[in-house]
Amino acid sequence: MAKPVFAVVLSGCGVMDGSEIHETVLALLAIDRQGGVAQCFAPDIDQLDVIDHRTQRAVAGERRNVLAESARIARGRIKPLSAFDPAKADGLVFPGGYGAAKNLCSFALDGPDCTIDPDVERAIRGMAAAGKPIGALCIAPVLLARLLAPVEVTVGNDAGTASAIEQMGARHRVAGHGEVVIDRVRKVVSCPCYMLDATVSQIADDAHAAVAAMLEMMG
Amino acid sequence: MAKPVFAVVLSGCGVMDGSEIHETVLALLAIDRQGGVAQCFAPDIDQLDVIDHRTQRAVAGERRNVLAESARIARGRIKPLSAFDPAKADGLVFPGGYGAAKNLCSFALDGPDCTIDPDVERAIRGMAAAGKPIGALCIAPVLLARLLAPVEVTVGNDAGTASAIEQMGARHRVAGHGEVVIDRVRKVVSCPCYMLDATVSQIADDAHAAVAAMLEMMG
Repeated sequence: MAKPVFAVVLSGCGVMDGSEIHETVLALLAIDRQGGVAQCFAPDIDQLDVIDHRTQRAVAGERRNVLAESARIARGRIKPLSAFDPAKADGLVFPGGYGAAKNLCSFALDGPDCTIDPDVERAIRGMAAAGKPIGALCIAPVLLARLLAPVEVTVGNDAGTASAIEQMGARHRVAGHGEVVIDRVRKVVSCPCYMLDATVSQIADDAHAAVAAMLEMMG
Repeated sequence: MAKPVFAVVLSGCGVMDGSEIHETVLALLAIDRQGGVAQCFAPDIDQLDVIDHRTQRAVAGERRNVLAESARIARGRIKPLSAFDPAKADGLVFPGGYGAAKNLCSFALDGPDCTIDPDVERAIRGMAAAGKPIGALCIAPVLLARLLAPVEVTVGNDAGTASAIEQMGARHRVAGHGEVVIDRVRKVVSCPCYMLDATVSQIADDAHAAVAAMLEMMG
């Protein structure tokens, strides 16, 4: 039997302006450990901003490309998200990091009124239409709340983000580490990861559980 | 008993011009899973170059700082390597990636005649003098070959790098995945990681085995 293919959508390289690196690597590990194949994608667009992760300050005048920076985590093996074909994937995964809320959509600026990157929207709607599972870690469930309401998701226990999710017509469930919130109707899996204080082992466990839940939905 | 402290020395963020990201995250995971505490460090210097990881080409005119980029993997929790105190660490770990050969030393340019960053040299010599274990993944063992010859290390089976290691007066042993080369006299542990073709699970296994060998040496 062919191995299940997980498309993993990145948003840069670094928690403050891109994909959260631990969540991404540990999602790739969880996929490989459980017999899947990962293919990374990212939109070929500029990042919203560039943050110096040491000082946490924006770097004035610097521009970085989401696909080029995401390629760092993917070791160069990455495709532009415009090339994503839902027919060629069995599952779609969004690691967290502010990049998911800054580059894949405008949630960091606009909250519940956010707009979604067109390629991201096409990927999510394509998988949903095909009845294939979608997993979202950390802050990334806001993408699914915006597009697949009344989907049920978790971002851990952050009241502000939970409220925004509810304002988008989706449902939020509080969850802790090791807990995966599963919407079986919409085939959406989410877990808190670094939305909660966490050790890197807890991130590995959360990512493993999310991928396991997606595999189970693939049958 | 206090948890053993592993100082992890980064060289940027991305395999082609900094720390290999999978090796770094999976070393942090291996440390946490086995009951240790990781503290990341990096030198506060400019990178040798900036490589677009999608095209594999150098980006003309762009400068990035090793400490600031390394902070992406460390989620901001990182110290300048100049602040490293061997008395406050039980082990020292160098993940791989070209950054180890471009930014921590000049091996990528100068081969066996390479010079070592002064803070890197101080950290390695301080730990060696204190009889504390040092672990090096992937290409990073060249640092130890340069400073601790006739130490025995592995970089997998790359003949050119192995020859350079021997020219520095160190010994090279061919190793495959799951194999850790241990020099018990100099308390140095090395394993091939991405010097060989590898899955992310093999990197996790290699990093786990290297940290386990270091813990065993700590007694």
